[in-house]
Amino acid sequence: MNLQCPLPTTNKDSIRLGHGSGGEMTQQLLKEFIQPLFKNTWIDQAHDSATLPWDSDRLVFTTDSFVITPLFFPGGDIGKLAVYGTVNDLAMGGAEAKFLSCSLILEEGLPFNTLKKVLQSMAGAAEETGVKLVTGDTKVVERGKGDGIYINTSGVGSLLSNHPIDPSYIRPGDRILLSGDIGRHGITVMASREGLEFETALTSDCAPLNAAISALLQGGIPLHCLRDLTRGGLATALVELAETSGQAFELDEAQIPVCESVYGACEMLGLDPLYVANEGRFVAFIPAEYADQASAILREERVGASCAIIGKVTGKPSAQVILKNSLGCDRLLQRLPGEQLPRIC
Amino acid sequence: MNLQCPLPTTNKDSIRLGHGSGGEMTQQLLKEFIQPLFKNTWIDQAHDSATLPWDSDRLVFTTDSFVITPLFFPGGDIGKLAVYGTVNDLAMGGAEAKFLSCSLILEEGLPFNTLKKVLQSMAGAAEETGVKLVTGDTKVVERGKGDGIYINTSGVGSLLSNHPIDPSYIRPGDRILLSGDIGRHGITVMASREGLEFETALTSDCAPLNAAISALLQGGIPLHCLRDLTRGGLATALVELAETSGQAFELDEAQIPVCESVYGACEMLGLDPLYVANEGRFVAFIPAEYADQASAILREERVGASCAIIGKVTGKPSAQVILKNSLGCDRLLQRLPGEQLPRIC
Repeated sequence: MNLQCPLPTTNKDSIRLGHGSGGEMTQQLLKEFIQPLFKNTWIDQAHDSATLPWDSDRLVFTTDSFVITPLFFPGGDIGKLAVYGTVNDLAMGGAEAKFLSCSLILEEGLPFNTLKKVLQSMAGAAEETGVKLVTGDTKVVERGKGDGIYINTSGVGSLLSNHPIDPSYIRPGDRILLSGDIGRHGITVMASREGLEFETALTSDCAPLNAAISALLQGGIPLHCLRDLTRGGLATALVELAETSGQAFELDEAQIPVCESVYGACEMLGLDPLYVANEGRFVAFIPAEYADQASAILREERVGASCAIIGKVTGKPSAQVILKNSLGCDRLLQRLPGEQLPRIC
Repeated sequence: MNLQCPLPTTNKDSIRLGHGSGGEMTQQLLKEFIQPLFKNTWIDQAHDSATLPWDSDRLVFTTDSFVITPLFFPGGDIGKLAVYGTVNDLAMGGAEAKFLSCSLILEEGLPFNTLKKVLQSMAGAAEETGVKLVTGDTKVVERGKGDGIYINTSGVGSLLSNHPIDPSYIRPGDRILLSGDIGRHGITVMASREGLEFETALTSDCAPLNAAISALLQGGIPLHCLRDLTRGGLATALVELAETSGQAFELDEAQIPVCESVYGACEMLGLDPLYVANEGRFVAFIPAEYADQASAILREERVGASCAIIGKVTGKPSAQVILKNSLGCDRLLQRLPGEQLPRIC
């Protein structure tokens, strides 16, 4: 119990953890509070970045705050995540990240050593992804009013493709390419937070996706839409895309790669891997005739070794996502309703 | 006492509130931790924004996080501050703000009504300053791990002047024009936080500065450098500029406008108005022959009614700021050493 907390304890009229889950509650918050107030072309697109009327419409702009706990986890840390996350959001808009801002909210009492490790990790990730950190800000809040370190990165990037890549370009017949096995990040962070141990060592999938997207574009793949899978997992990302594009998707459950450790952990904990968070996975919507070529290109990339075609856009009139299992049964996927696992990114 | 806090209680090797003051301790943090890791043209400039090689070098990029407490204060609130702050940072780079991102870190238990009021205020401020909020992000942290609401805004703007406006253009002989009386924001927020009451009602100077800068540029004033006065007050801003530009400034104390309420409050509380925070004031460095014309233009603007020429660039070799009082005594100004007032923006 935090004795200092001045906020009310009732839940009905106030923010709950689920509002940050990236699922249904986040969606409600956006619909009710944000979209009516900030109505414009870009907010209405409900994409992870905005392609702006600037320099022949090639400027893409995005932002993300990172509040993950713990700050360090197998396979990554908040610093890497903060750089990769924004680089990835730009990549999902078909853009190459050029410049990043970095704004720190530090908690009084944060050890300098922790700060240094996080910043070194950010610098390494920036070097790796070829992005320059050019402007920043630092705030400090009193002990107990933060949680060590929160990081915001915003990014500007340059559009690589001939047109913006966004949900409005999804077409019936498109194949859905998933870049790799799902759920590693969420399970790793939870295990790290709760002190759980699994038979096989598991690491987060936390990774930069820009090189893979560049490879696909350079390979001549006409990408219709891209989306990285973060909070809310694969299912939530696809339901969002179905609704935004007005298209129906059909997935083949048997094709969705899940590694054994994640599968086992999910069984044990009663979680559905479709809803577990990722930080280095994406889906691409691709014309059917390019699907095999795209898979072959992606498989050559470090982040795409376990990629798979997991479904298609059916052309049916309802904007929904159907999962078909091996027995031929259909399951209608929904957004993550509330909170599966808070503070995952 | 916060029983949940996992951070050490010793101060020596960890973040203190003073590291967020915008003064000497913030400077040390930047020098020791940030600049060595992220060395590039823009970080080295130590300016509030970065002018980027894009679209004929007219793209200016900046970021700021806002952690003010209380969220609402006489004359403003965190929402207004978050929009004005970033619009102002762009204006200080000689740029017109075009697009903003908005990233929210909400604390579990934050009443929806509070969130709504803050967002409405942001929307109003965006409308007022002609900037479009085009991309965003929302995170939620557990009760006691935040303080209601933290906001990050990043902004991209278009350079209005013929060259970037930054400390490297400050020249001997330049006059220093201060846009208005100082210290209102800091004293107002402190009074609001501590429940102090003064004889005269005081409101924050929180205001957008873009119209005033546009007016100066349209009036043909060759602005050499601009800086808004936020944390650390007038003194800290000028010491920073002296050091970055390598120039010496001389100020005439009698010319620095301070309103009676602020003066009285500072006397009572033992504060120096030169170090009290502002959120709607700036200094401009202007060739001597344009100083009167610039003052006349600024006086017509709402935010510049009490503007004054407060000093000049002397051309002396040492990078320092000297304050001359009415008795002719000199005082060497330093950065705010630690923390005068935390959580002011």
